[in-house]
Amino acid sequence: MGTVGILGGGQLARMLALAGAPLGLRMLVMDTVADACAGQCAPLLVGDYRDEAALAEFASRADVATFDFENVPAESAEWLSRRIPVFPGPHALAVAQDRLAEKTLFRELGIPVPDFVDVPTRAALEAAVAQVGTPCILKTRRLGYDGKGQFRIRSTGDIDAAWAALGAQAGSVGLILEGFVAFERELSVVAVRGRDGEFRTWPLTENWHVDGVLSASLAPAACSGALEAQATAHARSLAERLEYVGVFALELFCRDGMLLANELAPRVHNSGHWTIEGAETSQFENHLRAVLGLPLGDTRMLGHACMLNWIGAMPEAAAVLREPGGHWHDYGKQPRDGRKVGHATLRADSRESLAKALARVGAALGRASQVVPVVERLGD
Amino acid sequence: MGTVGILGGGQLARMLALAGAPLGLRMLVMDTVADACAGQCAPLLVGDYRDEAALAEFASRADVATFDFENVPAESAEWLSRRIPVFPGPHALAVAQDRLAEKTLFRELGIPVPDFVDVPTRAALEAAVAQVGTPCILKTRRLGYDGKGQFRIRSTGDIDAAWAALGAQAGSVGLILEGFVAFERELSVVAVRGRDGEFRTWPLTENWHVDGVLSASLAPAACSGALEAQATAHARSLAERLEYVGVFALELFCRDGMLLANELAPRVHNSGHWTIEGAETSQFENHLRAVLGLPLGDTRMLGHACMLNWIGAMPEAAAVLREPGGHWHDYGKQPRDGRKVGHATLRADSRESLAKALARVGAALGRASQVVPVVERLGD
Ligand SMILES: Nc1ncnc2c1ncn2[C@@H]1O[C@H](COP(=O)(O)OP(=O)(O)OP(=O)(O)O)[C@@H](O)[C@H]1O
Ligand SMILES: Nc1ncnc2c1ncn2[C@@H]1O[C@H](COP(=O)(O)OP(=O)(O)OP(=O)(O)O)[C@@H](O)[C@H]1O
Ligand SMILES: [Mg+2]
Ligand SMILES: [Mg+2]
Repeated sequence: MGTVGILGGGQLARMLALAGAPLGLRMLVMDTVADACAGQCAPLLVGDYRDEAALAEFASRADVATFDFENVPAESAEWLSRRIPVFPGPHALAVAQDRLAEKTLFRELGIPVPDFVDVPTRAALEAAVAQVGTPCILKTRRLGYDGKGQFRIRSTGDIDAAWAALGAQAGSVGLILEGFVAFERELSVVAVRGRDGEFRTWPLTENWHVDGVLSASLAPAACSGALEAQATAHARSLAERLEYVGVFALELFCRDGMLLANELAPRVHNSGHWTIEGAETSQFENHLRAVLGLPLGDTRMLGHACMLNWIGAMPEAAAVLREPGGHWHDYGKQPRDGRKVGHATLRADSRESLAKALARVGAALGRASQVVPVVERLGD
Repeated sequence: MGTVGILGGGQLARMLALAGAPLGLRMLVMDTVADACAGQCAPLLVGDYRDEAALAEFASRADVATFDFENVPAESAEWLSRRIPVFPGPHALAVAQDRLAEKTLFRELGIPVPDFVDVPTRAALEAAVAQVGTPCILKTRRLGYDGKGQFRIRSTGDIDAAWAALGAQAGSVGLILEGFVAFERELSVVAVRGRDGEFRTWPLTENWHVDGVLSASLAPAACSGALEAQATAHARSLAERLEYVGVFALELFCRDGMLLANELAPRVHNSGHWTIEGAETSQFENHLRAVLGLPLGDTRMLGHACMLNWIGAMPEAAAVLREPGGHWHDYGKQPRDGRKVGHATLRADSRESLAKALARVGAALGRASQVVPVVERLGD
């Protein structure tokens, strides 16, 4: 069925490659580093995303392009899209790369968002904090990930420190101030839209972050059908407005039973990793199906699933492999502080058995704190 | 977790490689041809299995060895096993490579088998046919696969033709005469045994062959618990006697509600491909877990599954991808008459919905004859 080129060669590209092989696809991964972990599962082209010669080689060897990494320069995506089909398209990518453009679009589509203000200067920051109120968060508009490029402002006394931390980036990637949301839960809806406009979502997922990095995801999220319908409607209106093709995630805060949109990730998403074992069709396979114009696969769940992220280094596999519904994902990366090196998914037929399995794994690995919030939610 | 070397680079090695990546394994595949399809998913070493230099390179690059191809010369397996761990062991491989040794072992373990007689000469064939009676089948003892190396003898008048077809191989691979079993069904039990002796089976599978080649598999097979228990007991006694490590399949005929053993395939097996989507843990992952001494995964099924083999060339994918439980497996091979180039698995929560999906796929692909026996069984 041809060769799918993926810009970025991390774990998302790796899992896309593994999902593509059964479809008979050849893959080509491009990354800036030679040890990108997707290179263990697919041919790897090493080059800079701004290097036209590298992009030209990529375009000559791939029939269609997509992304593992949302921060590929928008101009590179544009350049490529004049040569081969690129999904999601450069416009969708550009919007999702910029927190200001993204939140402006959310608001335009009637999707509730936290207060936000553009912060081009130090003076603008003072005014923005006065407008939004404290607590609030100063973020880079572009290039943030895993909570990087963020500074929490608890009171006006933190403005100096916030500017010292991020002010230098105001002129390059830009800054945005957001109201801090005292959310009860974080949710995400992982969705896919085909080339023909067909749209599907996986069940809503609840997510827990630690230090700004995803720690655990639970699906289906325990929430009302009305809330799920609202999340799905938001995702659909975004997908249609952006003429989005492929998988994306819409990250949401839930406060007082209401949804506020945080951001749109224009790619397969960490909160959708559980779909590999927990859904009839995984987000990785459906992304490829969408990008290739194939029929989309069924997104329904098989039971209940919880994904646990492994950050920094892999724990012992045995505690997970011993669980009846335990599945292991080692990305083949070198350990490094704060790095996502793998994950586990636990699948079970009931909430009770999932809670028990999580408790056993948490105890065996000495990671009670990672599983406790999930176990508590399952007991609600 | 190290590098798993696989002798043979066909679709079984390919699916092993895809199952190994999430476990963080590196793979090394050895095959005699440079376009072996597993080479699209893992590093490929091209060489002859009898070439010591090639085997030495293989041994130096792998931490443990296993097989995609059961007809690797037993001496090569022996040679390797003096350098790195080899699972299943050379003895199990040697027994399974020889229909005479295999059936002799079945009988020794009290596992019922069709009548069989060694056929070293033309005169022995006459005597064997007289002993076994017609109809019967003359088979090569070694190197047969997909029904190749077999000749059906309907009456004594066919003896000349049978000898003309296979007699020349009596001195090399050997010949065996088997009673022809007028079976009602063909079944297989796919089983796995760990390094520590832990033993598990997937639910019994019913298989349909066309021209000696597997065409469709259905799991769980509709049969009594007593029959399943018997099949499992046979598989277990074989595994224990052979000190088998890894996945194997025991092929069985069912006649008058009784089981007769046909053969033991010392590797992951075509009749277990449905486990990728239809079981909590696939045969491919459990084979790797066994070979590496990791805990075995749960073998229970998720609903009902049917696997359809694609022989010769791939049909259009869309008819399968449109089905809610439709999963596609293209092995990335060049089309060729009689070649297994891919398969599809249909998964459903009930027998009725599986039957309907099969009927739709059969109609859409103009392959009614492939699905009809399965649909009929589901309606029984
Ligand atoms: N306005 C906010 N109010 C409350 N918490 C927030 C807010 N913005 C971010 N957070 C917290 O920080 C986490 C990471 O923030 P965000 O999603 O904006 O950053 P990111 O760098 O894109 O992270 P990721 O790559 O994990 O999605 C959020 O999931 C949430 O837990
Ligand atoms: N003794 C027998 N009586 C009736 N049918 C038989 C007999 N032996 C073989 N067959 C038929 O031929 C098929 C292939 O035979 P067998 O399993 O011995 O060969 P093979 O070459 O190892 O095939 P495969 O690789 O598909 O297992 C069987 O699955 C069965 O349908
Ligand atoms: Mg986020
Ligand atoms: Mg057979």
